[in-house]
Amino acid sequence: MNLEYITDIGKRAKAAQSVAATLTSKQKNDALVNIGKLLRENTDKIIKANKLDTENAVKNGISEVMIDRLMLNEARVNSIADALNTVVELADPVGEIEGGQMTPGGLEIIKKRVPLGVIGIIFESRPNVTVDAAALCIKSSNVAILRGGKEAINSNKALADVMREALKQSGLPEDMVILIENTDREIATQMMKLNDYIDVLIPRGGAGLIKSCVQNATVPVIETGTGNCHVYVDASADIDMAVNILNNAKTSRPSVCNACESLLVHNDIAKEFLPLAKKKLDEHNVVWLGCERTKAILCDDEILTATEADYKTEFLDYKISVKVVDSTEEAIEHINRYSTGHSECIVTNNFQNANLFTQRVDSAAVYVNASTRFTDGGEFMLGAEIGISTQKLHARGPMGLRELTTTKYVIHGNGQIR
Amino acid sequence: MNLEYITDIGKRAKAAQSVAATLTSKQKNDALVNIGKLLRENTDKIIKANKLDTENAVKNGISEVMIDRLMLNEARVNSIADALNTVVELADPVGEIEGGQMTPGGLEIIKKRVPLGVIGIIFESRPNVTVDAAALCIKSSNVAILRGGKEAINSNKALADVMREALKQSGLPEDMVILIENTDREIATQMMKLNDYIDVLIPRGGAGLIKSCVQNATVPVIETGTGNCHVYVDASADIDMAVNILNNAKTSRPSVCNACESLLVHNDIAKEFLPLAKKKLDEHNVVWLGCERTKAILCDDEILTATEADYKTEFLDYKISVKVVDSTEEAIEHINRYSTGHSECIVTNNFQNANLFTQRVDSAAVYVNASTRFTDGGEFMLGAEIGISTQKLHARGPMGLRELTTTKYVIHGNGQIR
Repeated sequence: MNLEYITDIGKRAKAAQSVAATLTSKQKNDALVNIGKLLRENTDKIIKANKLDTENAVKNGISEVMIDRLMLNEARVNSIADALNTVVELADPVGEIEGGQMTPGGLEIIKKRVPLGVIGIIFESRPNVTVDAAALCIKSSNVAILRGGKEAINSNKALADVMREALKQSGLPEDMVILIENTDREIATQMMKLNDYIDVLIPRGGAGLIKSCVQNATVPVIETGTGNCHVYVDASADIDMAVNILNNAKTSRPSVCNACESLLVHNDIAKEFLPLAKKKLDEHNVVWLGCERTKAILCDDEILTATEADYKTEFLDYKISVKVVDSTEEAIEHINRYSTGHSECIVTNNFQNANLFTQRVDSAAVYVNASTRFTDGGEFMLGAEIGISTQKLHARGPMGLRELTTTKYVIHGNGQIR
Repeated sequence: MNLEYITDIGKRAKAAQSVAATLTSKQKNDALVNIGKLLRENTDKIIKANKLDTENAVKNGISEVMIDRLMLNEARVNSIADALNTVVELADPVGEIEGGQMTPGGLEIIKKRVPLGVIGIIFESRPNVTVDAAALCIKSSNVAILRGGKEAINSNKALADVMREALKQSGLPEDMVILIENTDREIATQMMKLNDYIDVLIPRGGAGLIKSCVQNATVPVIETGTGNCHVYVDASADIDMAVNILNNAKTSRPSVCNACESLLVHNDIAKEFLPLAKKKLDEHNVVWLGCERTKAILCDDEILTATEADYKTEFLDYKISVKVVDSTEEAIEHINRYSTGHSECIVTNNFQNANLFTQRVDSAAVYVNASTRFTDGGEFMLGAEIGISTQKLHARGPMGLRELTTTKYVIHGNGQIR
């Protein structure tokens, strides 16, 4: 019964895909503008639906932070609609000729950029993701199958209804955006195995969701957004710069994936640096989990002993694991062992150490003398972002529109055989 | 116990990866030349090991075709060694700067091409794959974990020993090539889930192997090489050209993935085309599995009725499924439903139909008026090929050295915080 439900959605998506592949940029932009218009016109309806979700959340004792993430008001609906303009203004990667050549036998081989096809997006509570993700899929001629969290189901339904109506009014297949209204966990699991109809799965959410996709999916997954990011303060670091970068990376927004979770310090600078760093982070009451040398230097009873598990943890909180190391090599080894491959930083004035670090650290973004917080589609000037890939296949780091496309070889001949 | 065995291999690979990432092209080329030299010097030893495998194969009643695929003689060892020169001559994609920019805040963002890391290759009986695959991994600064079939285990051991010895002599980590000597199925399954140590899995072999990887792996998989390829003969086709292309695509080498498995013919040309096509393919005793209209036109009792399953099947044999259709659209829909996304061809003189076909057919390589047999790394001038990707993530179609790499962002700052 459920398998039938999700298979039917897959079939509708596949049918829409065939039309989506032939759309012009103008058609897609007109539809996006129309979505923005209808979102504004339906603000009351959307807020009303959202109220059901927030009321349920209050009843279920959800935390205030989470309720705030879930809540939509007029300003937020407007800002969701505004964000569509950014997508309209992005260059369309579909149809780009990547390259090609004439073979000695006279075949013309053309490598073209084409949409991925049907993209499954599994995400958690923030309803703005529903529109953001759908808009990027539409702009790249993909079909989006959206599966949001059950806490936001009423908001998501209202938003999806508006988008589908706008697509229809613009003459595009409304099935370019399909929301899975059944929020049973079983449906999500079946979706992850729908290889006949879904080309790629992009989970957007916490480590648990990502892990569940990687473990269960047979559809190719792009892992996104878990960041156990490191700042390594080398012996030659400018101390003020190091304190500044660490403070920014750790405390400017601890709940995001590009925030620092772990500090490594060269032994030669640890005695000077650690007390200053501790003092700075104390302003935000950051909890320290340190190695024995860290504890000895800081002589602070409040510093807990860091365990193996701590070094692996993405805290997403005012918490940091700390380790004193004896060399850049040791820092690199530690990072490559514990990191999730998101973003790492070395603070140094040593040219060789900077190069060694950027060459050997196996992460999507490796910084010399700058905060890890810059790993972001906007900061990287991609215009918009569907997520930050922490795996190495297809896309690495912030993913924009181009990362929602693939290529196809088109070959023109005049009867060639081999 | 087995998990310990494969985890240990993973750890050794990871350790080698860190060194591999810093090798220069010259170091890698020197090592490849040395592998070729040692392969020639150890020809007798390799042939002796191979004899154990072929003798076992005879005992186990393996087919002659398979034994021929397995067998190594002096000429074949030489040709394996020769193939290394091709890899030496390929441009090294590692270290290429893909692009970058200065942000308004003064961060220099550089997108660099870097190795994937550790590549797991699971392959079937042909021992030349052992060296081919390892050489491409070495040249792209990757570490290869090779898991070949048990029929070729003695040959593979001998070849891997020689490669490791050559790496060592050249000052490279011998663990850049690790052969899994335990051929238990369980080990392969564990390898597919070794996410901490393997970055990507590339299966090379039949549909069963590929399916098993897609079903079981949690490590990202690049699906390769299953080809249910179609030739569609449009109403406006040049009949002689169509017969020629079909014959070449079907009969020049039926056992390969770019061979044609299914023929679609427009109804308006079917009466003229089908008898000529049948006559031509009869020269190779090709078995026809046709739709009712095909059977009616050919009035041939020997033509079997094609089932749904037949249209889905990659025969890899002198067998073809055939269907008469009423439009290019119907052909496209049929292909997108039954194809494995490898290679498809339209034979036509109609410009619009050619464009519709290349735009809507959702496969890696789409041909107008040329045989599907051209989908190949060599023919596409990639120099060498690790496989032909039939999925859409990361790589699509023939994969060369570049497809064994990923990118990394390196960001240079002078204290920037966000």
